[in-house]
Formats: sequence, C-alpha cells, structure tokens
Amino acid sequence: MRKTIAIDMDNVIADIETNWINLYENEFGVRVKKEDLLGKPEDDAFPDPAAARSLLYKPGFFRFAPVMNGAQEALKELQKDFDIYIVSAAMEFPTSLFEKYEWLNEHFPFISWKNIIFCGDKSVIDTDFLIDDHLKNLDFCKGMPVLFTAGHNIHVTRHTRVNNWTEAVALLKAEKEASENPLLTSTNGAVKTV
Amino acid sequence: MRKTIAIDMDNVIADIETNWINLYENEFGVRVKKEDLLGKPEDDAFPDPAAARSLLYKPGFFRFAPVMNGAQEALKELQKDFDIYIVSAAMEFPTSLFEKYEWLNEHFPFISWKNIIFCGDKSVIDTDFLIDDHLKNLDFCKGMPVLFTAGHNIHVTRHTRVNNWTEAVALLKAEKEASENPLLTSTNGAVKTV
Repeated sequence: MRKTIAIDMDNVIADIETNWINLYENEFGVRVKKEDLLGKPEDDAFPDPAAARSLLYKPGFFRFAPVMNGAQEALKELQKDFDIYIVSAAMEFPTSLFEKYEWLNEHFPFISWKNIIFCGDKSVIDTDFLIDDHLKNLDFCKGMPVLFTAGHNIHVTRHTRVNNWTEAVALLKAEKEASENPLLTSTNGAVKTV
Repeated sequence: MRKTIAIDMDNVIADIETNWINLYENEFGVRVKKEDLLGKPEDDAFPDPAAARSLLYKPGFFRFAPVMNGAQEALKELQKDFDIYIVSAAMEFPTSLFEKYEWLNEHFPFISWKNIIFCGDKSVIDTDFLIDDHLKNLDFCKGMPVLFTAGHNIHVTRHTRVNNWTEAVALLKAEKEASENPLLTSTNGAVKTV
C-alpha cells in the first residue's frame, strides 16, 4: 500500500516569509531582512507585529505568494511513490480559503481537489508523514513528523529536519526504501541537518 | 481522554435535500417530493439531473441551506462529552468554502474554527466516530461509522444507522457509557433502526 504524506502550505510549499517581507515593505516602508526572522515567532520579527499580522487578513495575501523553491518538482517526484495531501490550517484566516484553493490550482494542478484539506487543528489528520514548519502541528501528528526549516523554527531540535525540498525528497525516498527493506535502518532521526 | 466525532455537513447538519428541492422548483418550476428522492443517487431524483447538479455551483446554495432539525441542540449536547469536528467534502465545490464557513459561524457559533475541516477524500481523517450520509466516506473511515439517514441511502444496511439527531445523541451517549463500563456491551450494530 502506498504511504501517505501530509504537506503544509505556508512556509513549506508557499514562500510566506518572502511574501510577508515584501508586503510589509510595500505597506509600511520598512524592509525586514530574512535574517531578522531567525528564531523568532513570525510576526514578532517585524517592527510592528500587530501591523504585520493585519497583512494576513488582507485580500490577496495568500493568493499571490510565491512558490517555495523546488516544491513543484519535489511534489511531482514524491507523487510517484506516495499519496500526497496538502493540509493547511487555512481556517484561521477564512478569507484565505478560496485564495489557497486557487493558488493550489494554479501552481499545483497535479494535486486533485480530493487531496486538499483545509483545517484548524491538524491532530485528527492521520498520514504516515507530516511535513510542516510548526511544532503545534508536528508534536501531535499521528505519523512521522518532518520539520521543514523556516526562520521561526531554526532552534528546534526535537524532530527530523529538512532544510529544503531536495532534502525532503531524499528523506522520504530513504524512508520508503527502509520500509520496503527491513535490513536497512530508517533514516528517522539520522538525517538531522540542523 | 475525550473521544472524537467527525460530523458531516450536507444532509447531516445542513438540510440540503429541502434546499435542493426548493431551489429546483424556483429555477425550473417543478416541485420534486421528498419521497421521490428515496433510494436514488441525489441528482438522479430530479427530472433533469444535470440541471439539478448545476444548482450546487450557484452562489448561495450552501450559504442559505436550512439547519437540519435538532442539529444545533444535539451538537451542543454532544460537545459536553466529545470533541466534535465538522468534516465536509467542501473541496468538490470550491465556491462553497467560504459559504460553508459563514454558515457554520451563523448556525454553530459554538464550534471553533479549530474544529472545522474542509476536505475532499475523508479517509485520512482519524476520529473515533464519523456521522455521515455517504458510504464513500463511511466505508473508509478509521473510527466507528454512523450512517445518518438521507433519501439516497435508505436501502443501505451495512452500517449502524441513525434517522435523526435524537437517535444520534442516544447512540453516542450509549457508546460513551459502554466504553467507560466494560460490563456493558457496545451498541455498535445493536441499534439499527432502519
């Protein structure tokens, strides 16, 4: 049976950090550097956190976010061996629901609507793997948690980490091989690249 | 630990049958009786199935559906003992995403956004119970399937059936008691009320 992967949207396949920095500069005239986001809760990295957060509720914020580098090729590659579900905590920003649906349709047309899940709490999603940038999701997932590097999570050490989509594909392929060949050891925990 | 219930929207907490019949009459001048829907795939029950199906894509179809009789009181009651998730296959009708969110906010304001899930395929949703009117969901759920009676499913016999929200609350309460007292037998399969 094919294994299943739940893949988060924001900061995993959608480059929300870059989008947020650009929009903050457009609206408030201050350009925050990517380095300034390292190790801080996302909105706290901006000079005015409340103003930064208000941008998340503006029409278009999610619709026009750039695609994360390598995500399209990676998901196409993983789809050969896994059933992929896009799982986004979109319910926190209800105006984003249709924007996120349209964004996926534009950039990931090879993902069926049957494999898209917009939710709040991800703890009832049961897949073999979850690739996500947030501990609030990874800590409670039912499968193997895979931490996708984002500025805010660089100090986290308690999950297997991937820094980009090349590493993510390599990890998942190694996990597949290990599960098919019991003589190989799972890479779970062995490929931390912090 | 509190057990979890996934609850479908259409034909379970939202009275889609009544809504569909009313809108079909408004648009096409023919009133279909509720009895005409019995035992048939939903759209096939209308004189022009394609025309009936086209109504599902019209703005407002889901937003203004009536609430299923007794659903609000039942969910409030169940919430005392269970963690409730609304799980709707909304992704098939993407324009319904925000309508369904607003509908829930209006009629079920006591359900947090954290407990709302809009998806396509429900097979990766892992809750202890699933209350749904469709076999395509119930047959693949990870918990105990509970068939909520709708016109199209009246001939189904392979899941525990509830005909209304009074029966659903009674079943879930009995299940809770049985799980807390091993001397009682689970009602699973014993309360078929077809």
